[in-house]
Order: sequence, then structure tokens, then C-alpha cells
Amino acid sequence: MTSSELVELRRDLHQHPEPAWCEFYTTARLVDELETRDLDALYVGPEVLSEDDRMAVPDGDKLTTWFERARDAGAREDILERLEGGYTGAVAVLERGEGPTVGLRVDIDGLPITESEDADHAPAAGGFRSENEGYMHACGHDSHATIGLGVLDAIAESDFEGTLKVFFQPGEEQIAGGKSMAKSGHLDDVDYLLAAHIGLDHPSGEIVAGIDGFLAVSHFEAEFTGAPAHAGARPEQGDNAIQAMATAIQNLYSIPRHADGATRVNAGVVEGGTATNIIPEEASIGGEVRGETTELMEYMEEKSRRVIRSAAEMHACEVAINTEGKAPSATSDDELVAIVSDVAKSNASVESVIDRDVLGGSEDATYLMQEVQDNGGLAAYIGVGTDHPGGHHTRTFDVDEDSIGIGVEVLAGAILDVAEMRP
Amino acid sequence: MTSSELVELRRDLHQHPEPAWCEFYTTARLVDELETRDLDALYVGPEVLSEDDRMAVPDGDKLTTWFERARDAGAREDILERLEGGYTGAVAVLERGEGPTVGLRVDIDGLPITESEDADHAPAAGGFRSENEGYMHACGHDSHATIGLGVLDAIAESDFEGTLKVFFQPGEEQIAGGKSMAKSGHLDDVDYLLAAHIGLDHPSGEIVAGIDGFLAVSHFEAEFTGAPAHAGARPEQGDNAIQAMATAIQNLYSIPRHADGATRVNAGVVEGGTATNIIPEEASIGGEVRGETTELMEYMEEKSRRVIRSAAEMHACEVAINTEGKAPSATSDDELVAIVSDVAKSNASVESVIDRDVLGGSEDATYLMQEVQDNGGLAAYIGVGTDHPGGHHTRTFDVDEDSIGIGVEVLAGAILDVAEMRP
Amino acid sequence: MTSSELVELRRDLHQHPEPAWCEFYTTARLVDELETRDLDALYVGPEVLSEDDRMAVPDGDKLTTWFERARDAGAREDILERLEGGYTGAVAVLERGEGPTVGLRVDIDGLPITESEDADHAPAAGGFRSENEGYMHACGHDSHATIGLGVLDAIAESDFEGTLKVFFQPGEEQIAGGKSMAKSGHLDDVDYLLAAHIGLDHPSGEIVAGIDGFLAVSHFEAEFTGAPAHAGARPEQGDNAIQAMATAIQNLYSIPRHADGATRVNAGVVEGGTATNIIPEEASIGGEVRGETTELMEYMEEKSRRVIRSAAEMHACEVAINTEGKAPSATSDDELVAIVSDVAKSNASVESVIDRDVLGGSEDATYLMQEVQDNGGLAAYIGVGTDHPGGHHTRTFDVDEDSIGIGVEVLAGAILDVAEMRP
Amino acid sequence: MTSSELVELRRDLHQHPEPAWCEFYTTARLVDELETRDLDALYVGPEVLSEDDRMAVPDGDKLTTWFERARDAGAREDILERLEGGYTGAVAVLERGEGPTVGLRVDIDGLPITESEDADHAPAAGGFRSENEGYMHACGHDSHATIGLGVLDAIAESDFEGTLKVFFQPGEEQIAGGKSMAKSGHLDDVDYLLAAHIGLDHPSGEIVAGIDGFLAVSHFEAEFTGAPAHAGARPEQGDNAIQAMATAIQNLYSIPRHADGATRVNAGVVEGGTATNIIPEEASIGGEVRGETTELMEYMEEKSRRVIRSAAEMHACEVAINTEGKAPSATSDDELVAIVSDVAKSNASVESVIDRDVLGGSEDATYLMQEVQDNGGLAAYIGVGTDHPGGHHTRTFDVDEDSIGIGVEVLAGAILDVAEMRP
Repeated sequence: MTSSELVELRRDLHQHPEPAWCEFYTTARLVDELETRDLDALYVGPEVLSEDDRMAVPDGDKLTTWFERARDAGAREDILERLEGGYTGAVAVLERGEGPTVGLRVDIDGLPITESEDADHAPAAGGFRSENEGYMHACGHDSHATIGLGVLDAIAESDFEGTLKVFFQPGEEQIAGGKSMAKSGHLDDVDYLLAAHIGLDHPSGEIVAGIDGFLAVSHFEAEFTGAPAHAGARPEQGDNAIQAMATAIQNLYSIPRHADGATRVNAGVVEGGTATNIIPEEASIGGEVRGETTELMEYMEEKSRRVIRSAAEMHACEVAINTEGKAPSATSDDELVAIVSDVAKSNASVESVIDRDVLGGSEDATYLMQEVQDNGGLAAYIGVGTDHPGGHHTRTFDVDEDSIGIGVEVLAGAILDVAEMRP
Repeated sequence: MTSSELVELRRDLHQHPEPAWCEFYTTARLVDELETRDLDALYVGPEVLSEDDRMAVPDGDKLTTWFERARDAGAREDILERLEGGYTGAVAVLERGEGPTVGLRVDIDGLPITESEDADHAPAAGGFRSENEGYMHACGHDSHATIGLGVLDAIAESDFEGTLKVFFQPGEEQIAGGKSMAKSGHLDDVDYLLAAHIGLDHPSGEIVAGIDGFLAVSHFEAEFTGAPAHAGARPEQGDNAIQAMATAIQNLYSIPRHADGATRVNAGVVEGGTATNIIPEEASIGGEVRGETTELMEYMEEKSRRVIRSAAEMHACEVAINTEGKAPSATSDDELVAIVSDVAKSNASVESVIDRDVLGGSEDATYLMQEVQDNGGLAAYIGVGTDHPGGHHTRTFDVDEDSIGIGVEVLAGAILDVAEMRP
Repeated sequence: MTSSELVELRRDLHQHPEPAWCEFYTTARLVDELETRDLDALYVGPEVLSEDDRMAVPDGDKLTTWFERARDAGAREDILERLEGGYTGAVAVLERGEGPTVGLRVDIDGLPITESEDADHAPAAGGFRSENEGYMHACGHDSHATIGLGVLDAIAESDFEGTLKVFFQPGEEQIAGGKSMAKSGHLDDVDYLLAAHIGLDHPSGEIVAGIDGFLAVSHFEAEFTGAPAHAGARPEQGDNAIQAMATAIQNLYSIPRHADGATRVNAGVVEGGTATNIIPEEASIGGEVRGETTELMEYMEEKSRRVIRSAAEMHACEVAINTEGKAPSATSDDELVAIVSDVAKSNASVESVIDRDVLGGSEDATYLMQEVQDNGGLAAYIGVGTDHPGGHHTRTFDVDEDSIGIGVEVLAGAILDVAEMRP
Repeated sequence: MTSSELVELRRDLHQHPEPAWCEFYTTARLVDELETRDLDALYVGPEVLSEDDRMAVPDGDKLTTWFERARDAGAREDILERLEGGYTGAVAVLERGEGPTVGLRVDIDGLPITESEDADHAPAAGGFRSENEGYMHACGHDSHATIGLGVLDAIAESDFEGTLKVFFQPGEEQIAGGKSMAKSGHLDDVDYLLAAHIGLDHPSGEIVAGIDGFLAVSHFEAEFTGAPAHAGARPEQGDNAIQAMATAIQNLYSIPRHADGATRVNAGVVEGGTATNIIPEEASIGGEVRGETTELMEYMEEKSRRVIRSAAEMHACEVAINTEGKAPSATSDDELVAIVSDVAKSNASVESVIDRDVLGGSEDATYLMQEVQDNGGLAAYIGVGTDHPGGHHTRTFDVDEDSIGIGVEVLAGAILDVAEMRP
């Protein structure tokens, strides 16, 4: 694929952002491309997922809506059929003689953010703004998928010896898909795994050879149930689920900071009540806690459970708390980081190389990295700088498309060098 | 209509509860019935509403969904067409010679409550539970509409002299429809207006001749807008709309009680955020305040505005506050109350008559009552007792269907006696 | 005592406001006056109190401080000695032949409010502003005590037949003294009891013959205990008592309003923590709940207990909740109200008489009223209007001193007429 | 001074913990000891402080109370007189020929914590528990002062060449005294400054050669003023300062965590209201914010100001926010850290040496360190491990008294080696 074809692909994906397990158009488009390559294997949908480890799968209505939307957007019907029920993602395999098995993991999902329409927002100005109103590729996964394809092509054309597997993983944003792909079996023979992320406040031309400091994360859903009553006639007869929810929110954010390291908490999605004149019977919080270590995440989990339960108790409500998704922490292995660093330093387009940096966010690539490391392999997570006007997860996020090519070169170069290691 | 036909009608309406401006099936069903009567006029939809005074009209999508649902449920297509755009409700007119114009106002909308499936909940056991899942006639408006038709038939068969107008009003629950019907012009020549409500904690066989103490009410919608950010990587860059919302909720409920009389506040519906890993950019509260007098309601309005604005300011959010619906207070006129009381006392099915009671809730019948009273006419609001297992606005609410007949008799009797007064 | 002597006495008392059980100067000053009268009995301090029923007695340090202050202000040493340990108050008895025993109850304590120094605040301008900085007669009890003495003198000079007892009660503001005096035995032979209050938003020249609607009240003290920690080095090791307290306060004020009538809640006094750099281990709320009926007060009590306990639980704190003082509701008896009304109407200085009004506050006179009523006697609570520039319990509260004379005349007149009733 | 004398001194100081600017007994006791040495200069009280830079000075009453307490505890009258007005602390100077000027800074104040009476709390069991009930040496400053004296003696007996200044600094806990001593002029000629802290979760026998990561800190006092009202009769007329305070507290703790590093917030001391039946007019929060860098501290300051102001606004209150004390961050210089490390490693009692560690708390030693560093000198902050049963700032904190001797040896050794450097 040429540079301009890569950009064209990225823009097409950018126009069709889809949330976890709804990446129907995205998967179909990628598979459509992949089928034109001379691959040794191409696994799609249910073939790349461990059924029991899918997390945060949306309900049937939502799946259907996105399925139809993908069809309307022109996704190939025969591929779509293979994805039914929300089994998205793909794994492409290239076998090139004796040598280690190297994996590259890229993620493909979008976010529920309404994309900017400002004239100085390139996708708006350039006519490739999101067509799925209210959703947006605001974290660069459109570029990630594109880089995955670019690397595959680059390796195919190289003198690579070994096996390359490119993992197109669904549902990263909700920590929904990583574990399912990690447990699919496709990682079992991977000796070396690279994963990559664009941006992260690093400018175009900068490469971070090894990223660490992934925050362990746990998503939860708290559902409060009280008792309804007429808000005018009998306010005292209600047990107010929204009051319980509000008390919980205020106290969730005020869980004490921890001296051992960074923690996070967010009540990201709330919903409650049915009418202004009914004391609300139901309310819910979709939230998450994080920690610099698994222990810190668990500290936040325990405190948040206590807050939520006591808030319910205070307002005579019941509450059910479900854990919706979790990811561990992980570290990049020195040997791989050294290889990536060397490759990057020798690349003319790379202006600056940082050996190690800290993410400060969470990533379910850690599931795949752990899987490989637990099997005795090595893994690294690489940062590909890009000038991005707005921050990640904001409506003006965008990438410098030149970074896509740099990412392809550095990752392909690293894979070539990695293949020369012997496990 | 016979008693059993009335019950059948009530059950059909019960199965099809619809929210404000979406009473497509209900209106169509009532109009279908009304057309078989020998009426002097029948006004439908836009003909009975003042365009500018419709409040809390839902968006087009919601209107369309309910319109389709009514069609699917078998509503007559020709009537439905007249209601398009959410113009629901009807006014039936019977002219019977010289005499005053007497109005009867009944409301027809349902509530966003999921109806009980318990075996001891009569509609569930009897097979006429709500077919619109998540919605329910939990306040008896199905019976009100039925009583309206029953009274019309009873008067038609009587020696009534004068004009009877029955107002089938949409959107009472959200205080959405009263003003629009009050300002439609159809009230201008009404000399006496009766309105009625079933239940209200009064048992079957009890009549309240005049209800007062309507709480003045004001509905509002507060929409908070902050700034999103990645909850793990950059929490400090967000301006958290859900934190602003939660702070507002806690402080709304804690607005000081007022020594001059009863006040109310409810944050009835909330919504906010898009994903657990994004600091929420948007959140909203649909709420209401009430007061025993208009002044008390305004005290609550002013305090609630201050709370909401300061909560937004605290979290660096913007907030827009819209008033969605208002209703004044009102009182029942002595002359009418006396007539109703006399009629009730002489009715064999009535076991107990209370002359005056206090509602403690709100009602936009007050708009119609005020309209008539401002024109020099008289108005009264009547309570028709019914044994109801669950409270109003709860999922086990139901009526004793015998009360429908009692309601028809007392109201028709009162209308006959009222017609003999000379304004 | 002449009018000007009464005014002089009131101003002296006004300069020496003292809180519950610390009314040393006040009692000594009153006893000093009373001893110059030809009384049949004068009971002081411990003689007028039931030991076990004293509530909210301050600690020894506070008692000592106020005791010294009274001495420094010139209180008679021999009287002070009789009050040691915080036994304040007095009962003066006048026996004038055969006839019923009539009681008059007045209260004598002040409030912890800093008095205004404004030029238009009469006590400041007139040189009789509070000398006990931070305390103030902001509810008119200085006038009440003065009226008590004035009535005693007026009856002494009249042809009254029977026995008059004037109760100078300590500790009304904290609901601390009423029960103790009610249970002292001095009420046992009282046939008729009058109690009075000045102001209450009624203007000078207005009399309320019977006040009802006392809110039942319950005071509480909630003490939260958590675990301290260094706020910088180990914030996660603290269990924060001030967070628990703040959560409780927010939710106390937001206990649902009750449809059956007025309720109140106040977190009136808080304290917590020891240093800015220590996660606070202890915090307390001194608060109260009220209800239009005892049931409503108990509703508030139960809800407030739940809020406080859950707030403690939420922040892993212990909490102890103590009830500090309670008073029931009470009603004025018709026969007495009628007598007061007649007397007031025939008094030239009285411009307007209201037969019944509602207090909307609480009063532990209700203990004395109930005691008499339980013994088969009658009781009434009378309002003596006065123009007051600031509201009760604010720093600009003051009385129109002409009202003192009106109060004396109306109450003395009523006592004379009451004495002619036969129990 | 022998080991056992040092322990005796420490226990005496332990029995007399005093807060900032009230270290009357402590200073007098130390000066009494120092006067028996052959010093070249001894500065006391006002001589060691910059008047304008004293922060958080208590009011006169508190100063007087502690002054009297010191006198009652047997402090020398002639020394006490020099400390009047809260000018505590001392600087001892030893001149021993040509050589650099080396400073040692120790702090001397206690904390408002009630010391444990448990049998397994050594001071309780050993009879040297705090005699100032409610106050405690819960952070080891009694040991610091003792170490200061021990080092002075050790150097006096050595072949040290140069000048040694020992700074006995008051008011560290409230960040009250550091700046005042730093700006006193006594630091101007100091070439090298050592400061030390015992404990910090390091065990006996462990030395941290250089401590960094002091959190920048800012103390504040927020005073809310509303309007009082009778809580029963006119709740709506109050502007509730305690509600404003509670809203502020809840939202202070929930200021978003910052991705750039550690932040802290604490509402450490609160007070408000005067009576349960008065809507509270006044309330205050004594609190602090911290940050890993000055920028992070300022982020917290700005956010906290916004929260406090909006909470006041929400409840129609005024608020005044005063900054009560601040301290910057600081770092230990490599050259000094290396010397301390070498000395420690060669000391037989030292079992483990850590070169660098992070404090995670705040310290106003940073003012003195900065002063020296700004003048071109070097500074280091050293940790002296000790087994401590309870955490710092808790009621069971205690030290292993053997650590005092180790601290003296390591610090004296380091001072000797430092003196051989040439600035």
C-alpha cells in the first residue's frame, strides 16, 4: 500500500468510528483489504475471540443498530455475516520460513464523542469527519489499524524470516476486547509482541521505544433501586435512587489520594429516574477506578464499593455493583525496547527517541503482553509521536498523517530486527 | 355505554399508556368512539390546542416512535393523520337547547413507569397489563378518559338543557398540555367547569366535593456542559459535568424549608456522560419545584437556580436552565362544591362525602379552572375515591373499576344540577 | 414597680445575657428584686428544679466562667452561692386568700449571638448593649423576666383572690430547663397556667390570645470518630471524620419533606479536627429536628439517624448519637384563650387581638403546659406583639419597650379574670 | 551528654509537647542545657526570628495559656521572659578555628493529638506520656531537638575546624516557623546545611542519605459568613454558613487528581455555628493543599479557591480566604548526600543505607535549605530510621531511643567530613 493509500484508508476508517463489539464496518473494511494480500491465514470475528472473555458486550438492539449502519455504509455483506452478534476483529498471518513468531497488536474501536465541526479541524475541513454522529476516532485507532496494514505490507515485501501475526483488536476503549483476544489461542506461539499507540502528547517525529506505567483499571456499573412516590403528594414515601447516586458520586471523587502512587476515579456515565414528578426509583453509575499498580487499583475498588453501598444505605436503596472490565498493568521488556530504540535512531524521519516513558492511562494490550510474557516471550509497547491539536478523547483530536508512515517504518524495522533474535 | 363497555374501554386504554403529546392511540381510540355518538361538534388534535402554549413537546424521533406504535396497535389511520406532530387530545360538544355551558375536563396521558407483573396486580392477572413496556397508567387517567365518555353518554340520554363540552386533555403528568388547551378558545364560553381525579388515597365509595391545595409547580431542565478529558491520562484537564450535576442535586434537596407553607423539589430524571474513561462533558437534570402558593414555588425556583448555577461555576461548567412547564394554584368555588356534595350525598353508591380536601400535588387542570374563573365562571375539582392497592405513580397502582360508574353518576348528576344554575 | 423601673430592669438584664444554666447574674438580679416584695414564698435555684430532668448542662469550666462573670458584674454573693453548679431560675409565690392557683411562666436565658453595634440598634445607641460579648438577648427573654416581675407587682396591688406563682425558667433556648421545672413539684397545684412570648412578628399593640402549633423538637449531638494520619505523607491511612460529617450535613438538610406537615432540620453547631496537616480523627454535629406533630418529629429523627450512621460507615468512622433535649407539642385551652381575648379587647393600649395563631417554632413551656393539663388544669400561651427591627435570633433584634407595659396589663388582667373561674 | 542523658532529655521534652510559637518549656529547657556548654554564641527567641515572616501566630490568649503552663512545669523564669509574645526557638554557635560554616537544623514543636494511654505505648508505660493533655510529640521532634544537642556536644569534643550552628526551629508542623528562621540572617554565612528527620517508615539502623520529594504546601483558612435565623420559625431567612462549608468540603476532596504528579488536600479543622436552633451564620475551614511541585500545589490552590467561593455563592454566603503558611519544594545536593552516605556506611550501628528517598510530605526546612542554596551553599535532608509502632501523627507514634545515638553519630560524622570540603 502506498502512503496515499494508507491515508485514504485511515480517512475511511475515521469516517466510520464504532464502539466496542460494533466495529462491523471497520472489520469488514480491513478484511476486504486483507483478502487482497497473499496471506497464510486470515481469522475473522468469532475465530479470534475467546467467547467467555468478551467483556461489556452491548445489548442486542445496539448491536443490530450498528450492524445495519455498517451495511448502509457499504460494508461487504458476506464479511458482515461472519461478525454477527458482535464478534469483531481479525488476525492476519504471514509465514515466511523459519524464524520466530512476531506479533503486532493494533486496536480498531472509536469513542462516543461528537467530532468537532470547526473549520480548523482537519477531518471537518477535509470532508472525512465522522459519519456516525456522536461517535469519533478521538484516540487515533483509525491510524493504528492503518499502521497494522502498512506493517503487514512492508514485512511481506521484506526478507523477513519467521511468522508475523497482526492482531486487529476490538473494544480497547472499554477494556472490553483485550482479554478475549489474549485468550483466543492465537497468542500461544507468539515469541515477541509489539503494540503501538500514536500521539500521547509526543510530537511528530518522536518515538518512545518502551512505554510503561499502564494504570491498572476496573470498570464498574452500580445500579441503585429505591422506591418511587409522587413527588408532590407523597415525597416522604419515596426512597430516592438519584439522591443515593449523587451522594455516591460526590464521595467517589473524594476517596483519599494514596501516597504509594497515582490513582484515578471517574463516574463517567449516569442515568436515572423517569419523570420530574416521580421520586426516582432507579439510577446508575458507570464508572472506573485505576491505580499505578494493581494494589492501588484494588484500594480504589474497595473504597468505591464502600462509598456506593453506604450511599445506597443512607437513602434506603438497594444497590447492585457489577464489574464490567479490568486490565492489569504491564512493562515493556528491555531487549525489545533496545531494538526499537536502535531502529528508531537510525530512521531519517525520526527526530527524537525517548527510551522509556510512562503512559498514565490504561490499555488492555496489557492482557496480550502478559499472555506472551507468561509464555516466556517478550513484549513492548511503543509510542509513535504525532502532532495532535486537541487532547486524546476530545472532539478536536486529530493526527498528523505523516506519522502513519513513520510508525510503519519503525515498527516494520523493529520486527525485522526482532526476527533475528532467537527466543 | 354500558358499565361493562366502560370497563372494556378502560382496559384497552390501560394497555396503551402514552406520554405527553404521544397519546396517539388513546386519542384515536376515543375519537373512534366519539364519532359513533350524535355530537354537535368534535374537535381533534390541533383544533383543541393553542400552538404557542404547548410545553415539553418531545423531539421528532420520539413522536415518530410513538406514532408508529399507535399504528401498529391498530389505531385508525385517518384519525392518526390528524394528530401528526404530537397534536393529541379532543373536545366533544353536545348542545341541548338553552342553558349554560358546562365543561368537564379529563386527562388522558400515562407515565414512564414499568407496570407490575405480580399475580396480585389485577391488570397483569387479567391480561390487560401495559403493552408499552416501561410505560403505565399509574395515575388512573385511563379511568378519567373513560369517565369522560360515560358522562357524555349519561348527559346525552338525560333531559339536560344547555351545552356540554368534554375536554380530553393530553400531557397532564408533565404539566405540558393544560395551558395549551386552556388557551385554545374552547374554554371561552364555559360557565361552569368540573374536573375530576380518581383515587388520591380516598376509598371506593367516597367523594370529595371540592379539592384545593394544588401545589403551584415549575418544571425545569438544567443542562451542564464542561470539558471532556481522558479519565486516566489527563483527569485534571476535564471540567466534570457530572460532578457539577451531583453537587447541584445534593444542594437542591437541601434548599431550606419555608415557614410559610409546603414546598417541594425533585431531581426526577438525570443523564450524563458517554464512557467510563472520559471525564463527562455533559449532564442534565430534569426536575421540578413546587409551593403551596405561587410565592413559595417562586422561592424554590430562585433558590434552585442559584444552586444550579453555583454548582456549574464550582466545576467550571456552563449551564443552561430551561423552564419546561408551569402550573398555578387554584381553588374550587363554593357554589359548585355544594352542588357536588348534595348530589353525592343523595347517591346510593356513595358511602361517604368529604366537602373539602387538599391535594398536595400539582395539576394543570388549574389552567382551565383559572381560565373559566377569570371569565367570571365557576370551577371545581372533584375527587372520586377508589381502593387502590399501590400508591399513585407506583407500579402496583390500580383502580377499583366499580368507581368508574360512581364517578359517572356523580359527575353527570352534578352537571344536571349545575345546568339549572343561571350564571 | 413603675414603667420606667421596669424598663430599667429590662435594660440591665439585656446587658447581661447568659446561656442555659448560666443565668447567674439574671437570677441573682431577679431574686434581689423579689426579696424586696412581700412574698409568701421564694424558691431559688436547686429548689425549683428536678435534678434528673436538667438537660444540656454545660461542663464545669463553662459554669465557672459564667459564675465568675456574674460576680464581676456585681451579682450578690449570697444569692450566687445558692446557684452554684448551674442551678438557676426562681419561683415567686403570692398567696391572697381562697381561690385557684394561677401560674405565670417566663423564661430568662439569652443566646450565643453577637449583638449589633449599629447606631440604629437601640441597645447600642442607648448604652445597654450586651456586656457579655458573643451573647445577646436576641429573643426577648429580658422582657419576659421583666413582665413576670411587673405582673407580680400588679397582682400584689390588686384584689386578687387565690395563689399566684411566677416561674422564672432557665434554659429555654436549648430546651434545657422546661422539663426540669415542670417536674419540680411546683406545678402540681397549679390550676391555670399562662405563658407568654413577646414579638413573633406581631406588631406593638397586638395580642394573640392563644398560640398553638409548637413544633415538637429533638436536639442531638453526633460525634464521629475516625483515624488520624499525616495528610501529606499517608492520606490513605486516615478515616476522615470531617468528610463523614460533611456528607451527613449535606444529606440531613435533604431529608425529604413530608406531606403531612411541616418539618425542620438544622446542623447548628459543628466542630472537628485538630490541625491542617492531620486527617481529622474527630468531628461533631450539634443539631435538631422538628415536626408539626410528634410523629413528624420522629420521622425526621429516624431519617437523620440513618443519614448520620451511613455517613460514618461510608468513611469508615464510628459515630455516637446522643439526644440532648426534647420538647413535645401543646395546645392552648379554649377557656383561657377566651378570657385573654376578652381582657385584651377591653384594654385601651391594645389595637388588635388575634384569637389563635401558630408558632412554627418550639418551646419547652410545653412541658409546663402539659404538666398542668395532665393534672386536669388549663393552660394557654399568649403572644404580646412588639415592633422588632430584626428577626428573632438575629443580631439586630430588639423590642419596643412600651410593649412590656401592655404585656403586664393584659396578663395581670387575665389572671384576675381567671382567678374567678372555679376549677 | 551521655546516651542516657540524651534519653532523659528526650523524655522530658516528650512530656511537654507544645504547638507552634508556644514552645516555651521546650526552648527554656534547651537553653538551660545550652548555657552549660562552652558556646561562642547563643541566640534566643526574637534574636533568631524575622518578625515579618512568622506565620500562623496564635492569639494572645493561647500564647498566655501555654506560657503559664511552661512556668507551672518549672521552666526558668529568666529564659521564659525572653520568649514572651511567642518568640520561641534558639540558635547555638560553636566556633572552632578556620573552616566552613556548617548548619544543622532540628525542629522542636508538637502536635494537637491526644497521646495513647495503652500499656504497650512506651511513654505511657514508662511514665513520660504527655503532660499537656491533647498535645503530643507524635512526629519525633522531641528526638530531633535531642539529636541537635547531642551533635553539638559531639562536635565540641572533636577536632572539628570551622563554625557549627545548630538551629532549634519552632513551628514546623504548621509551616509556621521555617521562613522566619530562614530570613533571620543567621543562615547568611552558612556554607552547608544539614536537616534531619527520624522515622518516616524506615526501621532502626537505616539511614537515608538524601531525602527529596518534599510536597510544596499551602495552608488556608476559609471563613464563611451567612445570615442567622430561627431554625424553627424562619428557616428560609437564614443563609447557612455550615451548608456552604459542607458543600465546600465535599468538593475540595474531589478536586481532580493530576496526571503530572501527587497532589493532596485536607480540610483539617472546622468550626461553625453557635446553637442548634439558629441557622448558622459563621463557619470556617482550616485546610491545606499540596503538590509534588510548586505548579501542582498552585493547581490545587486555584481549584480549591474556586470550590470555596462557589460553595459560598451557592448558599448566599460571603467567604474570606486567607493563606496561612506556605513552603516550597527542595532537593538535597549530591555532594552532601554522598558524604552522608559514606559516613553512614562506615558506621557499625548502621545496617542499611538508602541514598535517595522521597518524603511525600511537606517540611519548612525547605525554606532554610533554599536560603543556603540561593547563597551558593549546599543542603541535604537526612532520614534517621527508627522502629515506630504507630504512624507519624497518630497517638501511638513512638521512637526506638537507640536511634537517637545513631542519628548523633551519623550527623556529627557527616559534619566533620563536610567541614573538610572547601566551598
